[in-house]
Amino acid sequence: MKTPLGYRYAATYAGIRKENKDDLALIVSDRPASAAAVFTRNNVQAAPVKVAKRHLRASGGLVRAVLVNAGNANCATRTGEKVALACCRAAARMLDAPVEQVLPASTGVIGVELDAEPILRALPRLCQRLSEDGFAEAARAIMTTDTVPKMAFGEVPLLEGTVHIAGMTKGSGMIHPNLATTLAFVMTDAAIPPTRLRTLLLPAVERSYHRLTVDGDTSTNDTILLLANGASGVRPDPKEQLVFGEVLAWVLEDLAEKIARDGEGARKLISIYVSGARDDDQAARLARAIASSPLVKTAIAGSDPNWGRILSAAGNAGVEFDPTKVEIYLQGVCVCRNGVAEPFSEPELKQKLDEKEVVIRFHLRGRGQGRARFWTCDLTEDYVRINGSYRT
Amino acid sequence: MKTPLGYRYAATYAGIRKENKDDLALIVSDRPASAAAVFTRNNVQAAPVKVAKRHLRASGGLVRAVLVNAGNANCATRTGEKVALACCRAAARMLDAPVEQVLPASTGVIGVELDAEPILRALPRLCQRLSEDGFAEAARAIMTTDTVPKMAFGEVPLLEGTVHIAGMTKGSGMIHPNLATTLAFVMTDAAIPPTRLRTLLLPAVERSYHRLTVDGDTSTNDTILLLANGASGVRPDPKEQLVFGEVLAWVLEDLAEKIARDGEGARKLISIYVSGARDDDQAARLARAIASSPLVKTAIAGSDPNWGRILSAAGNAGVEFDPTKVEIYLQGVCVCRNGVAEPFSEPELKQKLDEKEVVIRFHLRGRGQGRARFWTCDLTEDYVRINGSYRT
Repeated sequence: MKTPLGYRYAATYAGIRKENKDDLALIVSDRPASAAAVFTRNNVQAAPVKVAKRHLRASGGLVRAVLVNAGNANCATRTGEKVALACCRAAARMLDAPVEQVLPASTGVIGVELDAEPILRALPRLCQRLSEDGFAEAARAIMTTDTVPKMAFGEVPLLEGTVHIAGMTKGSGMIHPNLATTLAFVMTDAAIPPTRLRTLLLPAVERSYHRLTVDGDTSTNDTILLLANGASGVRPDPKEQLVFGEVLAWVLEDLAEKIARDGEGARKLISIYVSGARDDDQAARLARAIASSPLVKTAIAGSDPNWGRILSAAGNAGVEFDPTKVEIYLQGVCVCRNGVAEPFSEPELKQKLDEKEVVIRFHLRGRGQGRARFWTCDLTEDYVRINGSYRT
Repeated sequence: MKTPLGYRYAATYAGIRKENKDDLALIVSDRPASAAAVFTRNNVQAAPVKVAKRHLRASGGLVRAVLVNAGNANCATRTGEKVALACCRAAARMLDAPVEQVLPASTGVIGVELDAEPILRALPRLCQRLSEDGFAEAARAIMTTDTVPKMAFGEVPLLEGTVHIAGMTKGSGMIHPNLATTLAFVMTDAAIPPTRLRTLLLPAVERSYHRLTVDGDTSTNDTILLLANGASGVRPDPKEQLVFGEVLAWVLEDLAEKIARDGEGARKLISIYVSGARDDDQAARLARAIASSPLVKTAIAGSDPNWGRILSAAGNAGVEFDPTKVEIYLQGVCVCRNGVAEPFSEPELKQKLDEKEVVIRFHLRGRGQGRARFWTCDLTEDYVRINGSYRT
């Protein structure tokens, strides 16, 4: 699928992480793009988050470039904001852009000073390498414990022409790796003003990144950024914007699912569908409670059809329901009806649970039409291994 | 230490669990005891919880006996309440007590019908075995994945004489095992009426069981029961009741700490002290957020002084604080001051973190006097192993 017009990308190894693997990415729009963003709600916010917020306010929501580093979160650092600002300033100079139109983003270990020098040294070659074809390299450079780069694409045929959407993301599905950070950068060549862009981004994030469990742990650096540079020349009218918003949500859902699939130590993607709740919000709360339960996740890791854990996790969602109206399906097999055990073939279901994708359905009878989908992954011994020795 | 007067205990293997290990316990007071209880807030409640609540209401808070089984939670079962009631009725007959003065409690797998037969068959020999010295056997019979029985004792010298407190508990520190259930039975020979007993139990539970993380997972069967049978003949006056309440809290704290220490797969007890918060409630929320973070727990498992995870977890507590006023100590070593890294010897601290008990201190400067203590345990690969195959 085509990437949006008017963007260029580059990546390089600046030396921020020890391993010789690209750790610096630059995304550039050839003209100021409208921007909308969602940032972490953690009370502790990394320097790049603070600087990015300030820049968006100062520029009135216009962005020319995003400079992303992996390997260091630049959080809880003495010189954090100064470093982030110095890097933005250098990039702005090279791109001939106002500094407030350059946003920084970081991911990696926190509490370690980020050195500006290697980044400043890498910037000239980064700018030289900028290319319309650099999308995948940039997606690869922002990875931390991710095992694969994560990208998703969409296109929206409209009356005036087709607009394109391309997103890259990083992060662990189950829990933010190293505290650390879901980043997502989504570009489109549609022409949409910043305020309108925001009203399109929020519901799409609600359906995607907010339906991905990260054990309630919000990192200090989480950033989801949407850019619309209008390079396609297509300006969706209000009705077309709704279609655009739908495709945008698909792209974000695709990215979120890829994060869950690549969760740290994960062997299985778990999709949770809740239906029959009073409303969508209650369905989402039930789904979140099931998806967040370590007991459910370890059971799935062990291919154990322990549906009692699912029922009990739902019981902790803070949502009232009648347990005798609950139906639970694992891989399409009904294991609980009217809140009690439904006979099933244990060896057959165990075999089905060995698959790479596990689907849990939780249905409430006679309550309402509320539905929600949630993603998570299984909790394996590898997760503990990865996180017990990440820093050292 | 002496156990309270006027109680007898017994345990036997009824055949509820496969393994030949006592799975049925009976606690009997020789006279009706005042009772106060805290039950699970899970929306899904096991049959014994429902029956116990009903009995407490019907008896006006008087209890003669508690019948506890391990190996089956009797939750999400078709015949659950009937079975629980039949067992209470049989025990009541043998003890010559009103049925509403017999409370049931269960722990184990959920969604599997509990068979009354083996319990009814075991009851006569259980009653025969009742003895003042049976406390430890009863504590052992209620274990599930616990590796040691958990007991704590206290005594309160008062004007009229000394009263005794003895508690037994079971449960996994980190997460309820098999969804499953913290049970605590605390007996005293003080004479205190039921309503007053409740006002003493609630703050003691707040300081103990509510300061023990279980990953937000409340089981369907959680029960904390306090009995006061007055067999000592000592009736604490209102002032003395406060002293009694303090010792009661110590006993419950002792039990809660033992649960954390014996968490599933745990190698380390983690104690978290938060100080300098606006008030105790905010301190408790900060402590709970730190204690609940799988990233903090895996770091401690790996003896990794990754204080950034502690800072970020605190940032997710929903409590506002100034990150530049944070001090973090690990094993007494300051690793973060003013919200940024404080130099420390990494090999030395890693060695200290290898100890069986880890202390995390999180202090806010200039905010207030609020403090809280919390317990949890490290998150190890063994935890995943245990929970991936509990049921099958």
